[in-house]
Amino acid sequence: MNRLTEQLNFLMELDKLKSIQRRTLLLDKSRYENDAEHSWHLAMMTLVLAEHSNFEDLNVTHAVKLVLVHDIVEIDAGDSYAYDSVANENKREREERAADRLFNLLPQEQAAEYRALWDEFEEGKTPEALFANAVDRVQPLLHNCLTDGEEWQRNNVTRAQVLKRCRPIEDGSKVLWDELLRRIDLAVEKGQLKS
Amino acid sequence: MNRLTEQLNFLMELDKLKSIQRRTLLLDKSRYENDAEHSWHLAMMTLVLAEHSNFEDLNVTHAVKLVLVHDIVEIDAGDSYAYDSVANENKREREERAADRLFNLLPQEQAAEYRALWDEFEEGKTPEALFANAVDRVQPLLHNCLTDGEEWQRNNVTRAQVLKRCRPIEDGSKVLWDELLRRIDLAVEKGQLKS
Repeated sequence: MNRLTEQLNFLMELDKLKSIQRRTLLLDKSRYENDAEHSWHLAMMTLVLAEHSNFEDLNVTHAVKLVLVHDIVEIDAGDSYAYDSVANENKREREERAADRLFNLLPQEQAAEYRALWDEFEEGKTPEALFANAVDRVQPLLHNCLTDGEEWQRNNVTRAQVLKRCRPIEDGSKVLWDELLRRIDLAVEKGQLKS
Repeated sequence: MNRLTEQLNFLMELDKLKSIQRRTLLLDKSRYENDAEHSWHLAMMTLVLAEHSNFEDLNVTHAVKLVLVHDIVEIDAGDSYAYDSVANENKREREERAADRLFNLLPQEQAAEYRALWDEFEEGKTPEALFANAVDRVQPLLHNCLTDGEEWQRNNVTRAQVLKRCRPIEDGSKVLWDELLRRIDLAVEKGQLKS
């Protein structure tokens, strides 16, 4: 198979990410968000909010690449709801298998390049990965706050669970963490999130 | 309003792009694609296919920014189907108004930065804008070919119309244009597109 054909096959396989449903409501509550539109939203948030990262030398466009790629494995592995402990048990294993299949649709050196982006996001150690992971938690948290906590209530989620889940925001951006903490407490006050 | 609040308001407004329906079918034909997931798909295509652009010095991540931002105006202006001449008549005017409102939700200098990205894409003169515009036409064209031309047939679209619409691909990437020309002719052969 020639190089361009391999690339186009990979890119057309990516279309399936548009059918992977998350557990985040759109702000108009009309439906759940899917992974592809979520990834776009994160890319825009990464660009617009980069100045608030903890890292002066953040490579913003590299962080954008990380969020664009971070959910591709869910084409095979599915979305694991943050507060579902059973789904999260074998998540790593399912996602590793998915990464092996999906990125290897690309020509060899590109397969390695995109796999490395996913690994970097998952390891969460570089400034870009720390900020990308922060943004990945900021977005659903904002959506939950702005949809009256409906999804939290449906799943009996508590403030303590949200704090634990969203703590990595602080490692990427103290500014965003302060803002989100304020909004979490407001949600508790309004009875949208259990204390 | 403080700077972060303005940024978050803009980013939450962007959620509406997930509800702007295009006239491109997902590859499984289950539904039409929306602008947000389309923009993500283009970002991935821009990254993976950059080597095929006509420009040796292409700034790939700048081209990625252009595709991420290029459809935001459709939150207000709606999607204008490529082969609908009525919808395309006052498109420019509607989109200018939308750009004025939407990007100005951002702090002033960011508003100017994002407006400039949209203007650059629309003008289609820089290497990055030429390649971004090419990818924006490659993706729906591939989807039409891979969904048996159903949307073409529903709208009585002809090969001549597709060639006219997709010609800008050549200005961004001769390699992609050659590949797509081949696929267009195959679609005609199969009776999926009128000759």
